[in-house]
Amino acid sequence: MNTAYADLAARQLRSWRFIHLQSIAQWDQAANMPPAGNEARSLALAELDSLLHGMATDPALPALLAAAEAEPLDALQRANLREIRRAWRSANALPASLVSAKTLANARCEHAWRSQRPANDWAGFAPNLREVLALARQEAECLSQSSGLSRYDALLDLYEPGMRSSEVVRVFGALRTWLPGLIRDVVAHQAAETVVQPVGPFAVDAQKALGRDVMQLLGFNFEAGRLDVSTHPFCGGVPEDVRMTTRYREGDLLQALMGTIHETGHGRYEQGLPRELLGQPVARARSMGLHESQSLSFEMQLGSHPAFAGLLAPLLVKHFGAQPAFEPGNLHRLLTRVSPGLIRVEADEVTYPAHVILRFEIERALIEGEAEVDDVPALWDAGMQDLLGQDTRGNFKDGPMQDIHWPSGAFGYFPCYTLGAMYAAQWFAAMRRERPQLDADIAAGRLGVVFDWLSSHIWQSASRYETPELVQRASGEPLNPAHFEAHLRSRYL
Amino acid sequence: MNTAYADLAARQLRSWRFIHLQSIAQWDQAANMPPAGNEARSLALAELDSLLHGMATDPALPALLAAAEAEPLDALQRANLREIRRAWRSANALPASLVSAKTLANARCEHAWRSQRPANDWAGFAPNLREVLALARQEAECLSQSSGLSRYDALLDLYEPGMRSSEVVRVFGALRTWLPGLIRDVVAHQAAETVVQPVGPFAVDAQKALGRDVMQLLGFNFEAGRLDVSTHPFCGGVPEDVRMTTRYREGDLLQALMGTIHETGHGRYEQGLPRELLGQPVARARSMGLHESQSLSFEMQLGSHPAFAGLLAPLLVKHFGAQPAFEPGNLHRLLTRVSPGLIRVEADEVTYPAHVILRFEIERALIEGEAEVDDVPALWDAGMQDLLGQDTRGNFKDGPMQDIHWPSGAFGYFPCYTLGAMYAAQWFAAMRRERPQLDADIAAGRLGVVFDWLSSHIWQSASRYETPELVQRASGEPLNPAHFEAHLRSRYL
Repeated sequence: MNTAYADLAARQLRSWRFIHLQSIAQWDQAANMPPAGNEARSLALAELDSLLHGMATDPALPALLAAAEAEPLDALQRANLREIRRAWRSANALPASLVSAKTLANARCEHAWRSQRPANDWAGFAPNLREVLALARQEAECLSQSSGLSRYDALLDLYEPGMRSSEVVRVFGALRTWLPGLIRDVVAHQAAETVVQPVGPFAVDAQKALGRDVMQLLGFNFEAGRLDVSTHPFCGGVPEDVRMTTRYREGDLLQALMGTIHETGHGRYEQGLPRELLGQPVARARSMGLHESQSLSFEMQLGSHPAFAGLLAPLLVKHFGAQPAFEPGNLHRLLTRVSPGLIRVEADEVTYPAHVILRFEIERALIEGEAEVDDVPALWDAGMQDLLGQDTRGNFKDGPMQDIHWPSGAFGYFPCYTLGAMYAAQWFAAMRRERPQLDADIAAGRLGVVFDWLSSHIWQSASRYETPELVQRASGEPLNPAHFEAHLRSRYL
Repeated sequence: MNTAYADLAARQLRSWRFIHLQSIAQWDQAANMPPAGNEARSLALAELDSLLHGMATDPALPALLAAAEAEPLDALQRANLREIRRAWRSANALPASLVSAKTLANARCEHAWRSQRPANDWAGFAPNLREVLALARQEAECLSQSSGLSRYDALLDLYEPGMRSSEVVRVFGALRTWLPGLIRDVVAHQAAETVVQPVGPFAVDAQKALGRDVMQLLGFNFEAGRLDVSTHPFCGGVPEDVRMTTRYREGDLLQALMGTIHETGHGRYEQGLPRELLGQPVARARSMGLHESQSLSFEMQLGSHPAFAGLLAPLLVKHFGAQPAFEPGNLHRLLTRVSPGLIRVEADEVTYPAHVILRFEIERALIEGEAEVDDVPALWDAGMQDLLGQDTRGNFKDGPMQDIHWPSGAFGYFPCYTLGAMYAAQWFAAMRRERPQLDADIAAGRLGVVFDWLSSHIWQSASRYETPELVQRASGEPLNPAHFEAHLRSRYL
């Protein structure tokens, strides 16, 4: 009899129902809600948070977890129990006083940051960030004590379970040796290219219709999801009802298009999660890095593939009429243009990892106590010079103040972006080994080959394995940055 | 010290936060949700129901209620406590076994009804309805024991607090004496009228834009609400964020237009509720009948006023170009066309009460045990002949099977529709007494006069008074069907 396990599973299912409502209410807040609704919505969501926190910290749980671990369980149940314990550990590691101090300090810092950033006000920002960092260090210390991991690893584990900073150092270290040189080579290589820019304006309704056509091409199931508009595009909702958003500008066709393709990768991962045990932690998406590996599989590996431009071009012509920029070769050049810059969220595929490496190195030093807030500008300036050849001195707003992550207390998240890019390259390398004609498949629009591989190797596994084991099972080897390097060299040189 | 009262109020506020999420999730289910999301959504909403039910039946409540009733409270707090006790009584009157039996039987009957109705299958429907009725009688009995009201009154009190069937009999009895004759007179009077029909098609996007213009004219606050599309139009959301829906047909301009005006009345009532004590029962809309009095104030008293056609006409021309049907006099004739028919939801303002009186008489007899399900067809046929001169023999689908109320177990609701129409006529009679130039105000577009009256007399009172007291305070007299009769005679003859 698995009575303790069954009890735990029933509690998980109950939380999951509430998480469903939370997820839809948050999506609505971003996509629909009129401004006067915000205060009541925030209070309602806070009440739900408090309910979920109460369920996650129920004093009955430790005994139930211990009893369930002694029960005879099959492999899937055991994996589920591991995930239930992980969630319990992170929900219970922090004393209530620390949780509320963090909430307060993060909200204060983030709120002030919204006006300090445009004002380039580092001096105003630094004291708030110091407080946020002090509490993040305490959080890391608590999580470290409960998990046995190092402090930074304990934060990283919240986003990428099983990933360790030693592993990140190993793979990012490899990138660091060849990335700056590759960036220079690509920029030199592209200097001679002729690229025709699309000529707008591009009516928003036509962009929306184009987005839906592309999502259809990418296999998004509109019976189980929607595409809407929000200021900051994201993929929310639940696996049974995925709520994607994007944003449109009349002058810029490609931003919304590639954003839609990116979010469709997140969306299909969610739609493709196994229905068995739905609602249990084991049936949820594995991690932030794995999620990003799906959005980047769609946006970069597939969406920016030279042959994919041949599939996109007729859709662009359908919605906006023919123009020289839509010629497939030109379209591909547009989508793979590399240009080192200051801003991470505007970076191309080749320079993006440099932004992430810099942030990882700084935030790890901050959390481990090897650097302080006052050291950040100098570390930033040196890193940007070193990695991207950019001078950022005195430009805090486009430097260490540009991201919401630190002001909102999210340390340990940044590596996931580039881990995702590396996983995605590794998936496509594995696909190509299994199916050498993959590029011909893409050119011919046989995209099902890609989706089937991702489904059977990633989506259907959900959280059954920790990330390193999933990577090994899906691709036959541990995370190997050589695939990412080979991908960039073959696509950009 | 009001410690028990403060505890109760805090619990109400907590429930209210969850009701916010429930309301948004239900609106989303109707307006946005793709079909595959339905099962997960229903399970999530059921989980929330069960949470709210648990809070409403907390064993600590009886002692808290008793203690609070002994505390020194101001008038508003005392009214709030009365409403808290009312909600507690209805949530706790039914044994859990009856609640679940009802849920099951109602769902089974309603589900089968969806295919039995188009098949005109009374024989298949009757056994299910018998079960639903048996449980509704038990519910009425339980509510009656806990409230001291008669059985039907105990159900009616769920929708129209303070209203008694003796009062409904009094006012509906008055209607019954003059309504059938009035209908005949109006039909004869309109026989000679020339009415030009609008010529479509009317593009849905233009209808939506027209709807928004009309809502603006009617003072809807788009900073605190939205207009969307659903199969069955309704007004949902919360007072801070009202979610109205309507539906559009390209061939029928006026249905969506008048539906939008109707829902705007509901919406403005919600938006106009007092912000003081928001979240407490005393700050919520008073009742179903009062709510309907607002939608009918907007749709019938104001929206179908001859002078309002002069405000509508330019908006129709703006969105669809000029055509003879949009001439104000013709528009008014279109909006006030009377034609006895079989279907309540398609009925005009004059014949609608006949449909309601029939249902009230039958459902009251059913609940009080004076009639059985097998008696319904004969009662229906006789009533329809008597009230509307319609032959319904053998036509169950357009007869007693036409409404969702009975198959879903909602007995006691029907009177609210016509109570609402009578309240609305009484509000406008009171307005005219205070402001004899009201019709000129409407003709000149000075609609703020109407909204200010409704706000100060109805919206701002929220649930402070029970319905009969609110009616007396707002209009200076008890519910008086003479105002409704005078309204119909002056508008239609």
